[in-house]
Amino acid sequence: VRLEEALQNVRTLDREAMALTRKRLDSIIKPLGSLGMLEEHLVRIAGITAASRFDFSHKAVVVFCADNGVVDQGITQSGREVTAIVTENLATGDTCLCAMARVAGAQVLPVDIGVAAELTAPGILRRRVAAGTRDFSREPALRAGEVAQAIEVGIDLAGELRSLGFALVGMGEMGIGNTASSAAVAAALLDLPPEAATGRGAGLSAEGLARKIEVIRRALELHRPRRDDPLDVLAKVGGLDIAGMAGLCIGGAVYGVPVVLDGFISNVAALAACRLCPGARDFLLPSHLSAEPASTAVLAELGLRPPLQAGMRLGEGTGAVATFPLYDMILAVYNEMVTFAEEDMEAYRPL
Amino acid sequence: VRLEEALQNVRTLDREAMALTRKRLDSIIKPLGSLGMLEEHLVRIAGITAASRFDFSHKAVVVFCADNGVVDQGITQSGREVTAIVTENLATGDTCLCAMARVAGAQVLPVDIGVAAELTAPGILRRRVAAGTRDFSREPALRAGEVAQAIEVGIDLAGELRSLGFALVGMGEMGIGNTASSAAVAAALLDLPPEAATGRGAGLSAEGLARKIEVIRRALELHRPRRDDPLDVLAKVGGLDIAGMAGLCIGGAVYGVPVVLDGFISNVAALAACRLCPGARDFLLPSHLSAEPASTAVLAELGLRPPLQAGMRLGEGTGAVATFPLYDMILAVYNEMVTFAEEDMEAYRPL
Repeated sequence: VRLEEALQNVRTLDREAMALTRKRLDSIIKPLGSLGMLEEHLVRIAGITAASRFDFSHKAVVVFCADNGVVDQGITQSGREVTAIVTENLATGDTCLCAMARVAGAQVLPVDIGVAAELTAPGILRRRVAAGTRDFSREPALRAGEVAQAIEVGIDLAGELRSLGFALVGMGEMGIGNTASSAAVAAALLDLPPEAATGRGAGLSAEGLARKIEVIRRALELHRPRRDDPLDVLAKVGGLDIAGMAGLCIGGAVYGVPVVLDGFISNVAALAACRLCPGARDFLLPSHLSAEPASTAVLAELGLRPPLQAGMRLGEGTGAVATFPLYDMILAVYNEMVTFAEEDMEAYRPL
Repeated sequence: VRLEEALQNVRTLDREAMALTRKRLDSIIKPLGSLGMLEEHLVRIAGITAASRFDFSHKAVVVFCADNGVVDQGITQSGREVTAIVTENLATGDTCLCAMARVAGAQVLPVDIGVAAELTAPGILRRRVAAGTRDFSREPALRAGEVAQAIEVGIDLAGELRSLGFALVGMGEMGIGNTASSAAVAAALLDLPPEAATGRGAGLSAEGLARKIEVIRRALELHRPRRDDPLDVLAKVGGLDIAGMAGLCIGGAVYGVPVVLDGFISNVAALAACRLCPGARDFLLPSHLSAEPASTAVLAELGLRPPLQAGMRLGEGTGAVATFPLYDMILAVYNEMVTFAEEDMEAYRPL
């Protein structure tokens, strides 16, 4: 669907389903609220899906893969050819995310939304909007039409996944240079100085980090993205992966799909989505706190607290998939546990 | 074995196995160290088990169950009869921990180390040292011999689990009143004021919390436990579950078993273990940050940072079991991923 149309079809959380789910959680023999965020996330999923019964057996991680022209400025540890290599490895099951997803019982769905090189592996979803972005240190990364199209790819994917029965959708990315575009978008949306928004990505040296900060500083001065216009920010310094992920967040709110965020890049995308579509915020599930330095500021702006704080910074959706078993666990509690009504345990009931 | 003997047989981490495991992790195609604590925990397990190959298919959570005489002071939400009910439910698979452990593929092993009531369910490990503690607001909770015996139960369990092939052992507890004994032990070991060490447990009212703090304050004044003598602290204001868990921590260091901590109570037990046996610290794996207020101080003293921060406060070992899938995930990465040597991806290799 077109972005404008999607924005007019955003749902709100179903309060009745949330109340029913909370009521059942509170009737289970355990101290009230004692599973913390696990309970809160299940109640949120009730609101998202407008249901108080759940089946999480079908889970997926959608990995938006795209190249970034700014890589020409030497601000990454790896060369741009790695984007295509890892995208193919995602399709053949040969990345860290894939190994972790097998444990979690989740599908990995790589999406070519803007990889520069030709891809040959089957199993990659072909949604290429452009062959990577332009170098934002010299010109705007994307045209307005490309931004909208990438967002629409994400929105449509949410609808397709919903109709295929996926109950939890993790959101990941692959693209050399995308912590640079994310840092630039975060700096623009949050009005942060580039040095506060920018981190080492996959492991830059101190010298590389200084260069990356300087490139972002000059790009923001060159383009002056409008802080209150997320489409302008994405066009000037964003990426196709970020735009696609923002679309998935909006699509979650349109189609009632629980979207599990990953780390820094996905959080920046979620922030762009919420600026464009404030109602999308309620449909997001945080997973982990990335080691990238601006993650805390972005999550605070979103008002989201992630359950996992393990110093991870791999990307691909690894943080999202790492939290999937927690959903299986709270659902097992929800479905299998006896309630106070079923067992004579008034002594244990909260006052 | 006797406690004194165990303390003389504590291992140290195997640095060679750790180096081999780190070397393989660093050879895998991914940014160096990018799985954060997951990698650190696997390297620690290498040191604990003196091996660089792993099999986590056999996992267990040992739940130390015991009553606390101080419950007579009305400082808990539930009555003491609930300890026995939940202990039996642990054996029949009917608690939140059991539901979560089924997802994680882990065995739940309830241990009666001091439940006051008679238990009838099969599947409970019978290791009763006493029928609960005495009311520490009036007299010392335990005799010195009882403390040593409970610690030895934990040490021996570590050895038995090791010989049965359990590769990861979570540590949980069940005992109405045990956040009170844990708070008293934490206050004594860390020299904290009782109000800083004491929380609401399963959900006390503000009035109940004030009473609990006052009971702990008076007990510490009455008994004056010696801060530098963990056995004295455990005898005066501890519990059989805490002593058993401290023993499991020591046993982990004697038999080379990775012990996954749970929340506040288990962290307090680990602190007591490390005061008695500083070498035990290296054999501990933190899981989650409990919502009990003194958890942060206890973990800081142990120098441990837990990966999961989800506001959980249920106990039983639920925090430990919630992190078990992370071990399966890092092991899948470790075993299944290609290395730089196997694939021509020098471009992606860290500098």
